[in-house]
Amino acid sequence: MVLELYLDLLSQPCRAIYIFAKKNGIPFQMQTVDLRKGEHLSDAFAQVNPMMKVPAMKDNDFTLGESVAILLYLTHKYKVPDHWYPQDLQARARVDEYLAWQHTALRRSCLRALWHKVMFPVFLGERVPPETLAATLAELDVNLRVLEDKFLQDKAFLVGPHISLADLVAITELMHFIGYSPSSRETGVGGRKEPEVRN
Amino acid sequence: MVLELYLDLLSQPCRAIYIFAKKNGIPFQMQTVDLRKGEHLSDAFAQVNPMMKVPAMKDNDFTLGESVAILLYLTHKYKVPDHWYPQDLQARARVDEYLAWQHTALRRSCLRALWHKVMFPVFLGERVPPETLAATLAELDVNLRVLEDKFLQDKAFLVGPHISLADLVAITELMHFIGYSPSSRETGVGGRKEPEVRN
Repeated sequence: MVLELYLDLLSQPCRAIYIFAKKNGIPFQMQTVDLRKGEHLSDAFAQVNPMMKVPAMKDNDFTLGESVAILLYLTHKYKVPDHWYPQDLQARARVDEYLAWQHTALRRSCLRALWHKVMFPVFLGERVPPETLAATLAELDVNLRVLEDKFLQDKAFLVGPHISLADLVAITELMHFIGYSPSSRETGVGGRKEPEVRN
Repeated sequence: MVLELYLDLLSQPCRAIYIFAKKNGIPFQMQTVDLRKGEHLSDAFAQVNPMMKVPAMKDNDFTLGESVAILLYLTHKYKVPDHWYPQDLQARARVDEYLAWQHTALRRSCLRALWHKVMFPVFLGERVPPETLAATLAELDVNLRVLEDKFLQDKAFLVGPHISLADLVAITELMHFIGYSPSSRETGVGGRKEPEVRN
């Protein structure tokens, strides 16, 4: 049976997995789990991922959650090009370091910024105190500086001369915030003008 | 030059790395970074880890942060017994899944519970509203149930018949909360009586 990927492409980690599978020609069946309809809370989906979160994966009888674990599983099983997750000890460690950092730092502050800047005020009509928003954006800025100064520096990619899993999870997270935010280009996140992503 | 590990053994991830290195006979020089003295904020330590967090590692000129990345680096470099991070595709994926989950779920709720139950009221003399504490402990309980029901089930170890990196990071996190909390045995975390860890 073909590999099944349980995704909602509204989710950043789901998009990372989707792009990775498509780009590497990994055959899979897309099982859309519509978060807005609460499909991730259904009994059927709980059989695939008892944590009731997307992304999730089913490969015959083997089910797996957590985006990083799924990306690594696909990397190993389908023997994708080395640059995604290099065999070289130090390069691989650098990818692992970024994946761990992003999970607890950049992803969290991007999500918080999205809620405080867009979801609460624009979609839910709830006021966010200016000092809360300022603290949230300041934390995001700290993490964007770490992304630039420690990881990206003056290179084209986060690790080595080619794209890796680190770049993939970074870009899907960053584009999410930029794409959702109607005025993100004015906030100066990252301390520099945002690219004109909507053009 | 021998591998240098920058650790404060008050930190759970630092203890996981320390135990792992000792248990596997990995030669290293311990560089204690005293968090209570703010040594992680020093310029000298920033050269090792610009994120100014322990654990960190220096292997000749190669520096690395993030506990999971360091554990994987040591696993690969020193060719430790397979059970720590199995070659088997599915077993390895299960370890990766746990490591990713723990980082954002169990670790975060253990830390929050520690602050709300112990650090604020006992060490800093700050009152935590009962409803905040209740919400924190409820979240911890949810994650402890995931740990038991999804990951541990009725097995001796989280993945497979032997100890893995998953068990190591789980036990150092859980023992931290239990060890610090003078009344943790009364809270019923995890929905069952705590072991008599202090005896």
